[in-house]
Amino acid sequence: MTDTAPTAALLIIGNEILSGRTQDANMAHIAKYLAGIGVRFREARVVPDVEGEIIDAVNALRAKYTYVFTTGGIGPTHDDITAECVAKAFGVPLVRHPEAVRRLEKHYAGTDMLNEARLRMANTPEGASLIDNPVSAAPGFQIGNVFVMAGVPMIMQAMLAGLGDRLVGGPKVLVRTVASGVPEGTMADPLRAIAADFPGVDIGSYPAFRQGKISTSLVLRATDPAALDGATEAVLAMLRSLGVEPQVLEGYGDS
Amino acid sequence: MTDTAPTAALLIIGNEILSGRTQDANMAHIAKYLAGIGVRFREARVVPDVEGEIIDAVNALRAKYTYVFTTGGIGPTHDDITAECVAKAFGVPLVRHPEAVRRLEKHYAGTDMLNEARLRMANTPEGASLIDNPVSAAPGFQIGNVFVMAGVPMIMQAMLAGLGDRLVGGPKVLVRTVASGVPEGTMADPLRAIAADFPGVDIGSYPAFRQGKISTSLVLRATDPAALDGATEAVLAMLRSLGVEPQVLEGYGDS
Repeated sequence: MTDTAPTAALLIIGNEILSGRTQDANMAHIAKYLAGIGVRFREARVVPDVEGEIIDAVNALRAKYTYVFTTGGIGPTHDDITAECVAKAFGVPLVRHPEAVRRLEKHYAGTDMLNEARLRMANTPEGASLIDNPVSAAPGFQIGNVFVMAGVPMIMQAMLAGLGDRLVGGPKVLVRTVASGVPEGTMADPLRAIAADFPGVDIGSYPAFRQGKISTSLVLRATDPAALDGATEAVLAMLRSLGVEPQVLEGYGDS
Repeated sequence: MTDTAPTAALLIIGNEILSGRTQDANMAHIAKYLAGIGVRFREARVVPDVEGEIIDAVNALRAKYTYVFTTGGIGPTHDDITAECVAKAFGVPLVRHPEAVRRLEKHYAGTDMLNEARLRMANTPEGASLIDNPVSAAPGFQIGNVFVMAGVPMIMQAMLAGLGDRLVGGPKVLVRTVASGVPEGTMADPLRAIAADFPGVDIGSYPAFRQGKISTSLVLRATDPAALDGATEAVLAMLRSLGVEPQVLEGYGDS
């Protein structure tokens, strides 16, 4: 399936993912969010807290996709280097954003907690616009087509939800899942022919285990409902010819 | 922390990860496995089932890291294109591997299941050596520094465990976690000074929630036990000067 909808990539920044300490929980959430607004999620990368790696990845991805999201590395500690790396990637200075300072001052009003380390969370590349953080005040930011968000899932999700019409999607991808009842290899050849007949429909084939038997979930994805219907009917007819009674589930079903 | 130990990258291949249908379960497992044998896991990428994307990623990663692991796309269906893409990345033909055919014939002996689609799972780039699949026979393969494995976690884990001394590690990274009892921003400045004093120790700082309070887990990683001890002592002294009694946990602790 090829189309002209906006595309996106995710850059996950953090040693903790690569060391195995932390299981990433953001990629699947972002994938579902982007699918819901009609943006095609095309690539994800995980890099360590190393300046050159972050800069190179930001520049590679922002040149290739409509939107780039980053998660991680925007806290107050020495290992939080995302803002300065994104500034370097764009070739602009890192500046203290006045509105970000105001938000931190408001959040920490009446305490003596707003030290220099926390004020660093107000540093953004020059020309960036803020991304709201309704959880803990310290904002993310957007510069060009790059959206810099927190790594803590609860905060990242709130930031993403607040982006609203800063993200413009295309036609949504419609999804249907067929629980086939047969193993992949048994139907792979006829399935290949159907996939060739419906180039506008992406057909994924995934091993599944149902009632103790090896089966296959077929996931059909398309923007055109008629093409999706046609491919689904062809898949069902093919499976029935193999002597099974497949089940059609809306979306990803329980697959 | 910079050292000369072997490095590795992971390439996750599959639309199902980028669509949000499937939560990747392989990255964290591979991260822990590599840490255990002293290989530095430095980058991960997720790409869709698109030939050009897979070829480009394989070539970028194999030039940069000691080892590259791929997961996904080695089944019998039309969307399983990893083997042919890796062959193209290496500029060699895709051939039917006789030993892989023998294993499939043995696995499916006495059935009529070994059709052309399943035999495709015996295709490897010319010159590849097989990676055992004790779960479902169809092997992975190694060519050069690239290890091609299944995407199904149970099969991937068995393949990885069987690589044995095909992977040579360096010194293991020793890990210690300090449950600090204070929020990140409160200690960020003194922590930055400690990180600068111990360039051989990687100090990660991660927000944590303990007994309803915002806290921080500090993760110290180093190959040199003396450096790790020194940095840990410095961190503990710094935290005590802030009036808290930090806890030291071996490894990643319960953080």
